[in-house]
Amino acid sequence: MNIGIIGATGYGGVELYRILANHRYVENIHLYTSSQEKKSYIEEYPHLNHIDGGELKPLIPEQVKEENDVVFLATPSGISASLTPKLISDHVKIIDLSGDLRLKNAADYEQWYKKAPAPDELLQEAVYGLTELNHEKIKGAKVLANPGCYPTATLLGLAPLAKERIVKPNSIIVDAKSGVSGAGRSASLATSFVEIQDNFKIYKVHKHQHIPEIEQELHHLDEKIGCISFSTHLVPMTRGIMATMYIELLEEWNTSKLIDLYETFYAHSPFVRIRKNGSFPSTKEVYGSNYCDIGLDFDKRTNRLTVVSVIDNLMKGAAGQAVQNFNVMSDFAENEGLTLLPVYP
Amino acid sequence: MNIGIIGATGYGGVELYRILANHRYVENIHLYTSSQEKKSYIEEYPHLNHIDGGELKPLIPEQVKEENDVVFLATPSGISASLTPKLISDHVKIIDLSGDLRLKNAADYEQWYKKAPAPDELLQEAVYGLTELNHEKIKGAKVLANPGCYPTATLLGLAPLAKERIVKPNSIIVDAKSGVSGAGRSASLATSFVEIQDNFKIYKVHKHQHIPEIEQELHHLDEKIGCISFSTHLVPMTRGIMATMYIELLEEWNTSKLIDLYETFYAHSPFVRIRKNGSFPSTKEVYGSNYCDIGLDFDKRTNRLTVVSVIDNLMKGAAGQAVQNFNVMSDFAENEGLTLLPVYP
Amino acid sequence: MNIGIIGATGYGGVELYRILANHRYVENIHLYTSSQEKKSYIEEYPHLNHIDGGELKPLIPEQVKEENDVVFLATPSGISASLTPKLISDHVKIIDLSGDLRLKNAADYEQWYKKAPAPDELLQEAVYGLTELNHEKIKGAKVLANPGCYPTATLLGLAPLAKERIVKPNSIIVDAKSGVSGAGRSASLATSFVEIQDNFKIYKVHKHQHIPEIEQELHHLDEKIGCISFSTHLVPMTRGIMATMYIELLEEWNTSKLIDLYETFYAHSPFVRIRKNGSFPSTKEVYGSNYCDIGLDFDKRTNRLTVVSVIDNLMKGAAGQAVQNFNVMSDFAENEGLTLLPVYP
Amino acid sequence: MNIGIIGATGYGGVELYRILANHRYVENIHLYTSSQEKKSYIEEYPHLNHIDGGELKPLIPEQVKEENDVVFLATPSGISASLTPKLISDHVKIIDLSGDLRLKNAADYEQWYKKAPAPDELLQEAVYGLTELNHEKIKGAKVLANPGCYPTATLLGLAPLAKERIVKPNSIIVDAKSGVSGAGRSASLATSFVEIQDNFKIYKVHKHQHIPEIEQELHHLDEKIGCISFSTHLVPMTRGIMATMYIELLEEWNTSKLIDLYETFYAHSPFVRIRKNGSFPSTKEVYGSNYCDIGLDFDKRTNRLTVVSVIDNLMKGAAGQAVQNFNVMSDFAENEGLTLLPVYP
Repeated sequence: MNIGIIGATGYGGVELYRILANHRYVENIHLYTSSQEKKSYIEEYPHLNHIDGGELKPLIPEQVKEENDVVFLATPSGISASLTPKLISDHVKIIDLSGDLRLKNAADYEQWYKKAPAPDELLQEAVYGLTELNHEKIKGAKVLANPGCYPTATLLGLAPLAKERIVKPNSIIVDAKSGVSGAGRSASLATSFVEIQDNFKIYKVHKHQHIPEIEQELHHLDEKIGCISFSTHLVPMTRGIMATMYIELLEEWNTSKLIDLYETFYAHSPFVRIRKNGSFPSTKEVYGSNYCDIGLDFDKRTNRLTVVSVIDNLMKGAAGQAVQNFNVMSDFAENEGLTLLPVYP
Repeated sequence: MNIGIIGATGYGGVELYRILANHRYVENIHLYTSSQEKKSYIEEYPHLNHIDGGELKPLIPEQVKEENDVVFLATPSGISASLTPKLISDHVKIIDLSGDLRLKNAADYEQWYKKAPAPDELLQEAVYGLTELNHEKIKGAKVLANPGCYPTATLLGLAPLAKERIVKPNSIIVDAKSGVSGAGRSASLATSFVEIQDNFKIYKVHKHQHIPEIEQELHHLDEKIGCISFSTHLVPMTRGIMATMYIELLEEWNTSKLIDLYETFYAHSPFVRIRKNGSFPSTKEVYGSNYCDIGLDFDKRTNRLTVVSVIDNLMKGAAGQAVQNFNVMSDFAENEGLTLLPVYP
Repeated sequence: MNIGIIGATGYGGVELYRILANHRYVENIHLYTSSQEKKSYIEEYPHLNHIDGGELKPLIPEQVKEENDVVFLATPSGISASLTPKLISDHVKIIDLSGDLRLKNAADYEQWYKKAPAPDELLQEAVYGLTELNHEKIKGAKVLANPGCYPTATLLGLAPLAKERIVKPNSIIVDAKSGVSGAGRSASLATSFVEIQDNFKIYKVHKHQHIPEIEQELHHLDEKIGCISFSTHLVPMTRGIMATMYIELLEEWNTSKLIDLYETFYAHSPFVRIRKNGSFPSTKEVYGSNYCDIGLDFDKRTNRLTVVSVIDNLMKGAAGQAVQNFNVMSDFAENEGLTLLPVYP
Repeated sequence: MNIGIIGATGYGGVELYRILANHRYVENIHLYTSSQEKKSYIEEYPHLNHIDGGELKPLIPEQVKEENDVVFLATPSGISASLTPKLISDHVKIIDLSGDLRLKNAADYEQWYKKAPAPDELLQEAVYGLTELNHEKIKGAKVLANPGCYPTATLLGLAPLAKERIVKPNSIIVDAKSGVSGAGRSASLATSFVEIQDNFKIYKVHKHQHIPEIEQELHHLDEKIGCISFSTHLVPMTRGIMATMYIELLEEWNTSKLIDLYETFYAHSPFVRIRKNGSFPSTKEVYGSNYCDIGLDFDKRTNRLTVVSVIDNLMKGAAGQAVQNFNVMSDFAENEGLTLLPVYP
């Protein structure tokens, strides 16, 4: 297959390249960029200095359509809303890694992203690509909205509870932490080494644009779940997200029964690994891989459940899940190209 | 004054030395250790290689009493419970940085620390040294129980709410994160560089020994507060604690009014700094200093308050607060020796 | 093929596992350990918690011989010297990642390692496995001595000069820097996070055991090269080695001609990448991959050549090169299982 | 005294503030900036949020002269060359932390800095402020050129050898490594966290502008020393410089005799600490302090001396040494305000 990556110079784009370069069914990878037209990929990313060619192509929608079977959009928010309509055609499938096509309600997008939303028709067509929850719909998708990094970790941690409808309304609190690559590749003082190293920050308190995405998908499973409290922190590390979640349940449970519930729910999901009783995941244990690891414990003292979910934000939180969806959409094995083990240490 | 530091080779001990070496009223510092009797302090800590002498003395209680006016115990938990009674005398004041003398109820200590508690008489005599809350009692203290690092950050963040009695019972959730120096100075695989770097971990889920300490002190301010949910995480950084706290209030408030409440509460506390509306602290902003910085925001969407409190775990969370208490007990200016600005960057 | 890994719980062992688990011609991987007999691999390394079985087998030489076609020894120095003779048999090939079989002169081993050397017969049989220099001999090897991490980076950076015999005798200075995983997996204060983070150390000044290994191999190419000065530093990072090398040449050269020399020398070496004029590699650009990247510049002002060579110490510096040698010994494609791109960022 | 800091928003400027805020003879600190005129210092640096005022003043030379007794220029290179002449007056002393006034030969400045040099008269007036070597001249200085970070570490490590005239000409090789704060405070992709973390880079190979500064000062001590080879690397840490230096001597020495030489040379220098035989400094051992620690070992095998010198680049490499010079120029104790111990850990 011929694959195009738009936004190839960002961290999401280069992670797609890392996976797809070893994907058995990918023949050609075309790299597009709007900002760096003349440069080669090697100049941008010397770690790839063995590849031949690696020319960065200008972003001309007609050509992109002609040259590719599947196009990945690894662009910042605000671009695919207007770019996607130009790329749609009978034979091209589109996988958008940005936030532009995830929210079904355009007004939500405007409120949280402060940008113009995509056309409503497109929003309705786009399939939300949390693979574990939406497998069937993804199979037939022509336009796929790949989930955000925080929503992936959070939703995979909460879905079995929501599906079982045992969550006390408005009781969910998600305290999320991310490595710095989640902020994208850009020159900014706020993400410079000296400001981040030996530092732990909270940011976008009560304002993160992933909040409506999480609530939208939770409400598909259980509309009574209500609002969630959701906080985001920046960890002095490159990759990794941990969501620590506090939930009140409608009835009393114990940890073993809950673990059973999760294992059953994810019995056919090769990338979700439930930890056994007493064990909790750390972010490095999924580093560079497409796994989501989940641990949990019900605290009888406070009657609250703690669920811990970790992913690599560039893999299951972005490029890895995008390829997982690409596999499902293309009828390949779900883990084709994604059998990479976590890089540990 | 003549000062003794027991446990001088740990991180708490050497941070005490860093402060006291520049304290105007400290004449001699005697360093005691049980484990390293023959070594010099310079061999242990080459960053001090300019100091003369720096001999590590063996820990003989009779001599410790004779040689010092104030003795700091910077020992792991389980030692001062039995050592303190041997050091008590008319002219010696004791400041214990371990957890042994903080819990008034010996049974709580046994349950959470899994060790034999200190004699009840000693527990009742020891004054809990959260300076901002207990100033008057600390003035007259002979034996001082210096607070834990997590409790310091948490209690300073919650005290104004508890004092005002506006917290909905059982609604407090504290998601706490700490740098690795909080684990002490020891050779362990779990805290080795390669296991920590680029990693974010949760640990001691629902089992941390600082939980009863926090609840005990909160209940002094408002006995209706009930249980708290409290989680601890390890951040790949050396120093710093952030406590992110989620609280439901009995009535509706707005952020400005709450900031006023905090500013009034801490009006005479030189080391607590309340951030203005919209600003939140990060851990590096107190690095190496005795400050506790607090930011907060009331979320109308979820009707929950988020409070963020940061300290340097070795300073306000241990040695810095111990010297602050030493100053109050000795009638020195509260900030004597503690005017060090945060080391930034 | 059936593969055994002895010392599976170390960082070298688990990196072998990461590679071999995706190697097309490896059927079974048996994990042996002396220290942890009862544990499962998952308990030791939770990042592998999806694998079935993963039992750690006790190290019984007879069984190891029976169960495997190739045995990797990822053990600390001092073990394979005595263990290898017990494993040798007609049908088993042995790849030793430790330093025990690298020095042909037993007296050198004793002097630099301060341990008892392997039997001389074994030392003479073992083929030194710097794949790029020794390809033909490796093909027929039964016992392979996999090179050290520092020697790999250093020798690949110097070999074209030595082969061309243009190095001024006794003029080579190698200033080498390594990530902390090179120190192995152990509980030690010296490699604890808090002692390493935000710290840069020099160690083993003039005493590193890799010095005789480098000189031995250089002398095979040019016996007039003489002694080298060689320093090792610890960088606060997990993986990666950089060797910065300063060399005086017998005649004047310019950078372009030298780059040509290197490119010709490595024309058939898929894992060595020579940077173009003006570009130098950094360690992250080979992270997680088997590449060795080399940059160089001849300084007319001082008449000295600077060569910079980087590798991932766990890959090309240990497990990666071991698998590369395994491929050559087994007549597989040299890069089988090793097409992993660098993990960047 | 009234003190002005120009370039207060950079890392050099804020480190000056950290020191001077606790300096006994400093009454007022005025903060000037050209780029951020309207902002307050607290907005720029929230870690100082307790200070009153902290207004950032516009840079109007006439006012700067009126308001201050001493002016520190913590500006990037290229600014003080033109700014200093406007600030010179009878009663104001100037301490320039940039590279503009260090090179006595304007042509050298142009060649290495690629910028227009300062007026020759000013270059000749400016006293080079390596305090340990130039104490007497500094006492009477009106304009002081504060040394660069790399030159400070390098020159303090080589000065005793140069003064003794025992260095073999053209034999010195300096392999230097720096933390990232040395690159200044700016938004750049090259110094962003994700590009630096777990990475080790070499940069400006054979082109660093500190080379002529080091050679100029070495030649004052021994004009026969000739050229040096000098390399600079970026370490994933915030503060700290290590210079590893390789030197051939004109005659044979042993390590003990050399240590004696160094101790005698620095007998009256409170900030230089010579390590005893067998001990080498690491960068964290001077973190946040004004110390320069030096270790050395003569290698009989190669007949080369290795000297290791470490400093905190923001302290002894910039602001700390500037205050040390300020003290000498003002007849204060040399260590006034600089008794801060290293922050360890």
